[in-house]
Amino acid sequence: MESTNPDLGSRIETDALGALELPADSLVGIQTRRAVGNFAISGLPIRQHPDLIRALAMVKRAAATANLRLGLLDERVGAAIIAACDAVIAGAHHEAFVVDVFQGGAGTSTNMNMNEVIANLALDRLGAPRGSYDIVSPHDHVNRSQSTNDVYPTAARLSLLFAHERFAADLSGLAQAFRAKAALFQGVRKLGRTQLQDAVAMTVGQEFGAFATALQEDVARSAEIARLFLEINLGGTAIGTGLNAPPAYAGIAIAALSKLSGFEMRAAENLIEASWDMGAFVLFSGMLKRTAVKLSKIANDLRLLGSGPRGGLGEIRLPALQPGSSMMPGKVNPVLPEVVSQVCFQVIGNDLAVTLAAEAGQLQLNAMEPLIVHDLHQGLALLSSTMRAFSRLCVEGIEVDGAKCDEHLNRSLSSATSLVPLIGYEKAAELAKRALAEGRTIEDLAAAELGVPSR
Amino acid sequence: MESTNPDLGSRIETDALGALELPADSLVGIQTRRAVGNFAISGLPIRQHPDLIRALAMVKRAAATANLRLGLLDERVGAAIIAACDAVIAGAHHEAFVVDVFQGGAGTSTNMNMNEVIANLALDRLGAPRGSYDIVSPHDHVNRSQSTNDVYPTAARLSLLFAHERFAADLSGLAQAFRAKAALFQGVRKLGRTQLQDAVAMTVGQEFGAFATALQEDVARSAEIARLFLEINLGGTAIGTGLNAPPAYAGIAIAALSKLSGFEMRAAENLIEASWDMGAFVLFSGMLKRTAVKLSKIANDLRLLGSGPRGGLGEIRLPALQPGSSMMPGKVNPVLPEVVSQVCFQVIGNDLAVTLAAEAGQLQLNAMEPLIVHDLHQGLALLSSTMRAFSRLCVEGIEVDGAKCDEHLNRSLSSATSLVPLIGYEKAAELAKRALAEGRTIEDLAAAELGVPSR
Amino acid sequence: MESTNPDLGSRIETDALGALELPADSLVGIQTRRAVGNFAISGLPIRQHPDLIRALAMVKRAAATANLRLGLLDERVGAAIIAACDAVIAGAHHEAFVVDVFQGGAGTSTNMNMNEVIANLALDRLGAPRGSYDIVSPHDHVNRSQSTNDVYPTAARLSLLFAHERFAADLSGLAQAFRAKAALFQGVRKLGRTQLQDAVAMTVGQEFGAFATALQEDVARSAEIARLFLEINLGGTAIGTGLNAPPAYAGIAIAALSKLSGFEMRAAENLIEASWDMGAFVLFSGMLKRTAVKLSKIANDLRLLGSGPRGGLGEIRLPALQPGSSMMPGKVNPVLPEVVSQVCFQVIGNDLAVTLAAEAGQLQLNAMEPLIVHDLHQGLALLSSTMRAFSRLCVEGIEVDGAKCDEHLNRSLSSATSLVPLIGYEKAAELAKRALAEGRTIEDLAAAELGVPSR
Amino acid sequence: MESTNPDLGSRIETDALGALELPADSLVGIQTRRAVGNFAISGLPIRQHPDLIRALAMVKRAAATANLRLGLLDERVGAAIIAACDAVIAGAHHEAFVVDVFQGGAGTSTNMNMNEVIANLALDRLGAPRGSYDIVSPHDHVNRSQSTNDVYPTAARLSLLFAHERFAADLSGLAQAFRAKAALFQGVRKLGRTQLQDAVAMTVGQEFGAFATALQEDVARSAEIARLFLEINLGGTAIGTGLNAPPAYAGIAIAALSKLSGFEMRAAENLIEASWDMGAFVLFSGMLKRTAVKLSKIANDLRLLGSGPRGGLGEIRLPALQPGSSMMPGKVNPVLPEVVSQVCFQVIGNDLAVTLAAEAGQLQLNAMEPLIVHDLHQGLALLSSTMRAFSRLCVEGIEVDGAKCDEHLNRSLSSATSLVPLIGYEKAAELAKRALAEGRTIEDLAAAELGVPSR
Repeated sequence: MESTNPDLGSRIETDALGALELPADSLVGIQTRRAVGNFAISGLPIRQHPDLIRALAMVKRAAATANLRLGLLDERVGAAIIAACDAVIAGAHHEAFVVDVFQGGAGTSTNMNMNEVIANLALDRLGAPRGSYDIVSPHDHVNRSQSTNDVYPTAARLSLLFAHERFAADLSGLAQAFRAKAALFQGVRKLGRTQLQDAVAMTVGQEFGAFATALQEDVARSAEIARLFLEINLGGTAIGTGLNAPPAYAGIAIAALSKLSGFEMRAAENLIEASWDMGAFVLFSGMLKRTAVKLSKIANDLRLLGSGPRGGLGEIRLPALQPGSSMMPGKVNPVLPEVVSQVCFQVIGNDLAVTLAAEAGQLQLNAMEPLIVHDLHQGLALLSSTMRAFSRLCVEGIEVDGAKCDEHLNRSLSSATSLVPLIGYEKAAELAKRALAEGRTIEDLAAAELGVPSR
Repeated sequence: MESTNPDLGSRIETDALGALELPADSLVGIQTRRAVGNFAISGLPIRQHPDLIRALAMVKRAAATANLRLGLLDERVGAAIIAACDAVIAGAHHEAFVVDVFQGGAGTSTNMNMNEVIANLALDRLGAPRGSYDIVSPHDHVNRSQSTNDVYPTAARLSLLFAHERFAADLSGLAQAFRAKAALFQGVRKLGRTQLQDAVAMTVGQEFGAFATALQEDVARSAEIARLFLEINLGGTAIGTGLNAPPAYAGIAIAALSKLSGFEMRAAENLIEASWDMGAFVLFSGMLKRTAVKLSKIANDLRLLGSGPRGGLGEIRLPALQPGSSMMPGKVNPVLPEVVSQVCFQVIGNDLAVTLAAEAGQLQLNAMEPLIVHDLHQGLALLSSTMRAFSRLCVEGIEVDGAKCDEHLNRSLSSATSLVPLIGYEKAAELAKRALAEGRTIEDLAAAELGVPSR
Repeated sequence: MESTNPDLGSRIETDALGALELPADSLVGIQTRRAVGNFAISGLPIRQHPDLIRALAMVKRAAATANLRLGLLDERVGAAIIAACDAVIAGAHHEAFVVDVFQGGAGTSTNMNMNEVIANLALDRLGAPRGSYDIVSPHDHVNRSQSTNDVYPTAARLSLLFAHERFAADLSGLAQAFRAKAALFQGVRKLGRTQLQDAVAMTVGQEFGAFATALQEDVARSAEIARLFLEINLGGTAIGTGLNAPPAYAGIAIAALSKLSGFEMRAAENLIEASWDMGAFVLFSGMLKRTAVKLSKIANDLRLLGSGPRGGLGEIRLPALQPGSSMMPGKVNPVLPEVVSQVCFQVIGNDLAVTLAAEAGQLQLNAMEPLIVHDLHQGLALLSSTMRAFSRLCVEGIEVDGAKCDEHLNRSLSSATSLVPLIGYEKAAELAKRALAEGRTIEDLAAAELGVPSR
Repeated sequence: MESTNPDLGSRIETDALGALELPADSLVGIQTRRAVGNFAISGLPIRQHPDLIRALAMVKRAAATANLRLGLLDERVGAAIIAACDAVIAGAHHEAFVVDVFQGGAGTSTNMNMNEVIANLALDRLGAPRGSYDIVSPHDHVNRSQSTNDVYPTAARLSLLFAHERFAADLSGLAQAFRAKAALFQGVRKLGRTQLQDAVAMTVGQEFGAFATALQEDVARSAEIARLFLEINLGGTAIGTGLNAPPAYAGIAIAALSKLSGFEMRAAENLIEASWDMGAFVLFSGMLKRTAVKLSKIANDLRLLGSGPRGGLGEIRLPALQPGSSMMPGKVNPVLPEVVSQVCFQVIGNDLAVTLAAEAGQLQLNAMEPLIVHDLHQGLALLSSTMRAFSRLCVEGIEVDGAKCDEHLNRSLSSATSLVPLIGYEKAAELAKRALAEGRTIEDLAAAELGVPSR
């Protein structure tokens, strides 16, 4: 974040708590420095979540646009701020976003990190030395008409909309991979199982088609719930009363943000409520949990179906990705389904952290929002990368062992069920019991005793 | 469930595992008896959830209607079954639903409890002795064209739609109670607080209005998510392939169920998937968790605002419901907000149990669905009763201490923020710092030094 | 709780909030009545947890003993109180404990329910009418030297020690059942599996012996952690300062409680801390979660090993407890292992509720303790009943299919591992790969190519 | 991990799945490369947990020692392996540990990453080119007598013992900081509060002393539970049967590991069970959760006590660490207590992930152990860094506002409680009620009416 050129010397910045020396060309200022010192927690800087940086820069640009329109910013200063925002939006200078993802202060440190970077980049554009906050002030210019308490939640929501788009694409990709296998395996008959007990006939295509459907549903469902993030409290400032933001500001800023982001953002009806309510995050986290539950169940099914090679069900073969054991030669393990479940467990754990953070809100604000934002971004990123790996390295290479499927189906007693409409439940149960005891098939017994022709 | 008249003697029932003696007039049969013996777990019988009993009886009636239409049931037997279902739907005989809410078997015991009760009630109507299953069989007549694996999930979903309606009404009632208070308190100015630190001015009406909005939103949101329960797998039978149900059956049965229940039920697109996917339950549980998080936060806010009476914030007074202490005379505690939080914590705990159960599905079924159904019904019932008590005994009686609100606002430094647009952040911060150190107000200092007129 | 004889008429009781009419012979008084009205939450009364009632009555008796010793209670009144306590300890009058398990007030309603019942029972003994609190007062006599805030946590801890004893016995019983099976199956060789893939040889006895060890360990471990409950805050009164309890009181009361209960209770070193710290409950809950995790894993293993009967692993047979399906004749499901997992999921969910409640403590007390106590008792009771059923109905009847075990072991490639020390990992891996591709055994290939004699 | 000098060219490595080209001087080999390709999940490499790397290298060294002693390793090769292990134990080459913390395969990739690095470092020492696995083989030499399934769990446990020591020191340091404050504030009288309502008198010293006690207890308690990690399954190899490890191996290896690590490691009694049982991890995680619950409660108390500065309780002042708001000048927020709670929420979330992973074990192994190890190390590291920051930046600088404490105590009605032994609960309650209604103090009223002298 700081100087790469010590020859440039240093500058002094001050705030209500005192003064600090920084490298003269530091993009960040005293607030960022204090925050870095205060939050030596995880070692993970906020730039880990580039969607958040990008979204916050968009909010700053939208605010500047509104301030310019309302005459609250000098044209030259405003233009410089907008250009600075554009650079960050385009992906530049992300290395300057250094405060820890774990931070107190409800996002103030993230907001001030952005305010300081934008101010200094704007000063660059104006040809003024970094730190000349009398020309471009992080507070009075970059943060004009704003409070952390409206810009941070707004940026958080927008950033999750960005991340959700990638997540949905990866989820859809995985569903497609299962769909393609379903088509391929549609003719392979097999034994369906309930409660791990032999049930009735189905096809491998139906089994894989169900995986596809379960996941594809979540593309639609998560998109619906992500739409809750369109509702923002920008313009509410500190607690939703809009103090220090002119009446026309919110409308202009939100329109600008919508245009910039491509999402139709809109003001929450009750800005006081929107300042503290974490409901959209909680529900979205619950939605991710739902997807995680499905994914883990599917991963477990693949491990069951691929168990063996000789002492398990062995109905499918997962691609061999790496030797499975440091000791047992020839062993190949279902490593992708295993890592899928682990990632899902983390997502479920993160949902709990999000829940606890949301419940801890007090009065007009929720100070725990940085944790919520971090955990949701981490969960989305983990799921995305894992689903891509799962699809490409595992699902796409699954093969079916048709002979094994046949064998399981044929020797099962599943056809007893088909006899129920003909001979009643009780007699069919009797037949099944005898078949099991005598090691025979239902078809056998039925043909012999009931004159029911075998399949 | 069983005989109230031992003089009637006993009857013998048999199944594939052997024979059992039951009182001759027992409404339940051998399967229910076995299940009661096997699941001596919680002592809570399924009749604890009357919505589930009612919904399952509706499903049985809808199935009988379809079976009759398709000629799969004798008219007289079918009519007797329908009459029996109607009695249970109307609330009769619920004492016969005795299997434990905790049960293995994916709901089979609940389904068989219903099949046996309906069969015996139908036998009553036909003038035949209970247990004459050759006339009306729990399996071949009552359960005709059905499997536990489609009727139980269908009934579970419908029952949650019923329970949700009451929940939504109670939630809306609580929101209204807050809304009424918001109107009453709209003129009372107070100090807004973020992170428990003095922030800027607002009104008590705004604060309570935000509570109302947060809760009212969940009436709409939970209704949207409850709509996922409209999608059912009736007709899919054991694993979704529809084995043993004629092609026309599902359509007729679902239409009958819709008419009976008043909800527009519809078949899931992929019945294989719908047989095992617990996604709708998981998301609905996540939605209840969201409401719980909001409620607990609001309850905590009321405790903060009502803290005192002399050593706390004391801005509101909660109704005194009971002496607060066995030892400290005169102490009155916020007992309703406290029980609200406890219920919310249980709902959040139940959400985890639901999640674990959903994740444990294997292959074509989820055997843990009874736990999911129990925990969701318990959560809805707890929230409903608690919200009614909260509304009536606490929220409706809240009074505001306007003098205290005034005092907190007036002596605060919140007006420093209003000066920022006039004198800039840095000078305003300097002023606030001095005001705090010197025990003065911002108005005071500002008037003296900047010629800014006091408010 | 109230009159069974309306002819006796009514009595009036009053408190700081006003007056209420009760049946003249009501064992409970105005505080219980108010609490019942305020907490219409779950419908589950505290008598659901008889250990709690018994433990609280013991605390009351111990307190009365100390008060008598210190001259704070009149001999006659004291003796009557002690006799009343003895009756409740012996199991009488439990129907009078009617306040809801969900309650605000940090246990005050439970404590007052007990104070009123004991006072009225003491009045019976003194020949005075119930409600004559000038003779025996719930507050000034029964609750003398006490606060809810010390007696309720003390009783909660003692009650959990009682419940833990049953839990440990049931857990030990289940471990024994597995141990007996391990002995029976010690000679049956089988294929060990890691990650559901064929690994190396072991015996069924080793597999079941591991289940026994895993559970038996928790008998010891949970006993260690339960010992944290020996540390109590009795004598600390409202916030741990001991206000209104004479200096000698705590020592006498705790000694009396130890004698009465058979547990060596002792005073916490820091009574202020002990008044709010829920650490012992949280850790004990985490311990129950650990047992639940083990039980659920074992239940899942049994379902895996018993999968089939023809399309699964089929190495063991679980006892058939009930027909497994309403539709599929002959199907028998692993219903006990399934209900075991469901109960474990609930225990894990309750652990979360306990955690949330513990985290919500504020300043000198945790008002959420009633939820903690309820959830721990519920969890212990569920686990106890479930383990008894699991042991008796399932584990004891498990049979092994030795032929199936043999078949899986013999056709596996597990012996490739044994070759590693002889021919190195790489060559052994090559051999395993070829054996799999060619459908041969390792022994076969090794004998042919390496001159390694087959097993 | 790989070449810094491309001029050195490349080498080819092969395994059962095929061949891969690596830089000639790569410290890692084909297995690590495959794992890196397969697990592009989180981007966090295992070197993030240096304790794990160090512990695993110690296990490798202990195994080599035993293999040498038993003549299973050539002296020269063995010495080179030991020297290589020593280098890694000393902290060198950690950049070569590159596989993702999220990984399938039950730790095989971590183990193979270590085996390859050690093999190549040993080759360096022997003057042979890296990759000459015929001289030093990752499998046949470095991994000799071992399986991932015994070395990985062993290393995981040892690594947590290392991490726990730092955690305990930081926890103790924080407790000391509170203890020091307790001593400083021991003379400051204040109002104790239960359920956020005014209760009875205490001192600030008592309040802070309770914080110290609550935390100090966990130093002892967590050490007790960490001792469970001393029990290891080294020598059990793949599933606990000890296949491919000579009988004398385990004893020598464990003794060597104990000497090396300074911890008295010992063999589990039942190695089959110890291969899959995650009980020690679950309980330790529950213990961390307990500490997190306490920390978050204490952090919340500090925020309550420090609320204000003028509209809150204001009894203490937290050090001002950074300006609290981007908009509200002069606002200083309790940012350290806030980040403490967030970290605690993450630890509680991680406990859930650990629980889910532990429950997902199947048969002879738990494939999810890498997630368990990652989440526990992350939790310990987060708690350690946060407690250090909390202690140094917040707790040490807390000041008390004695005047405010006095004011709250004096105007409260807490002294009504002291009157109970004198005038009875009912009269005292009456007095308190009147005092509140009339705005007077208890002392006032009591003096006037009862002749009780004021305090």
